[in-house]
Amino acid sequence: MCGTELYFFCLVVMSGANTFGQWKKQCLGKVDFSKKGSVDEDIGHVVSFLNERENYFTTSSCSGRIVLVDGVPDSPDVRKQNCSWLFVSHGKCATEDVVSALRKSSGDAVLKFEPFVLHVQCKRLEDAQLLHSVAVDSGFRNSGITVGKKGKIIMAVRSTHCLEVPLGHKGEILVSEEYICFVVSIANLKMEENLKRIDRFSQCLMAALQQEQSTCSTEGENKEKSAYKRRRRRQQRDLVRL
Amino acid sequence: MCGTELYFFCLVVMSGANTFGQWKKQCLGKVDFSKKGSVDEDIGHVVSFLNERENYFTTSSCSGRIVLVDGVPDSPDVRKQNCSWLFVSHGKCATEDVVSALRKSSGDAVLKFEPFVLHVQCKRLEDAQLLHSVAVDSGFRNSGITVGKKGKIIMAVRSTHCLEVPLGHKGEILVSEEYICFVVSIANLKMEENLKRIDRFSQCLMAALQQEQSTCSTEGENKEKSAYKRRRRRQQRDLVRL
Repeated sequence: MCGTELYFFCLVVMSGANTFGQWKKQCLGKVDFSKKGSVDEDIGHVVSFLNERENYFTTSSCSGRIVLVDGVPDSPDVRKQNCSWLFVSHGKCATEDVVSALRKSSGDAVLKFEPFVLHVQCKRLEDAQLLHSVAVDSGFRNSGITVGKKGKIIMAVRSTHCLEVPLGHKGEILVSEEYICFVVSIANLKMEENLKRIDRFSQCLMAALQQEQSTCSTEGENKEKSAYKRRRRRQQRDLVRL
Repeated sequence: MCGTELYFFCLVVMSGANTFGQWKKQCLGKVDFSKKGSVDEDIGHVVSFLNERENYFTTSSCSGRIVLVDGVPDSPDVRKQNCSWLFVSHGKCATEDVVSALRKSSGDAVLKFEPFVLHVQCKRLEDAQLLHSVAVDSGFRNSGITVGKKGKIIMAVRSTHCLEVPLGHKGEILVSEEYICFVVSIANLKMEENLKRIDRFSQCLMAALQQEQSTCSTEGENKEKSAYKRRRRRQQRDLVRL
């Protein structure tokens, strides 16, 4: 690589680093426009921990939820925009709460369990790879990386763990209360497993990033020692020449 | 970059290319150890198309399925290894088939809809990025890239589209046949949407890869034309000197 090419290469690398810093500042300065308007309690520590690291920032998150939605009848896909929420819980829930919410349904009511989801923008591909390993090792097996055209690297923590149970059609409840009780107990089991996985993820993440930091410190110290040794040898050679 | 460094850099690049070729040959030569033992009919054309391209090969796939599983009672996660399959269909299915299969249950029976899944190993990150855009544009919004430590790049085509409905507990059926009929109709709607998305994916994929190939051909032709022009100018200069 000649001198001019090296100069421009450095410029590109530096502007990439600056861009990530700018993206991070912009993102963390924004108002939270999610339905809830704030970070879920069970993952607050994970989100803060990542946002304090130079090479990461979170762009969206949900600790997991049990939700009763009222959807458009006969629609193949129950998406947020097509339905209203009759009930939501970010922890375990009680059958009575679901039953009383269900009575307010006028469309196709569906009980869903949705696990922990986290989107993290990463500075370098190796940062995303580290996060991906942590996620998969913690049980979030559907996690994956996206690399956008402008170089934006996002790691999405995702799971296959789900439940989607139709309970009503055009406002009419189709199942017994005993069945609802059974389905709620399954949803609660999944929520419990989900919270365990979040704990595992949190611990693995801290261990992995602290290990990486101490490896960099050791490498940094070794580089300094080598630079010191080279300077000493140069000084000694200069003394001999004198 | 000095001469020696350039030499080694080329070696690394070439060995990376050779490794991908070796991985591909090994993978496509293997016996299919999946439960079904063969590629699903509805995605045969997609799988062949990708395997014929130099920069891709598929490592696993499923066109989507409606499956009735018999799981371990009170388990939070119904995974393949914890349960047996009472019924499976890679297309729409009939209520009677599900009901008669359900009667054979002795554990916790769960009806599930699982959408199209495809894992593709890619030669370069940009190949994975292209495939990722095609997948997301076709409706497979949970798609993502994995980059392994040995440089293995996998793009997983995935969707959020699912259904998971408990129908029985310890061999006892908990719902009415009318409810099963309703749930089967929802599963069938999801299967129909799934097959449309596979079509969309297939068409977008072909268009995207053919466009990329013709861009490369045009660039290749332009490079040839430039090389030809330079050779002509050199010959003319040589003639003038003579």
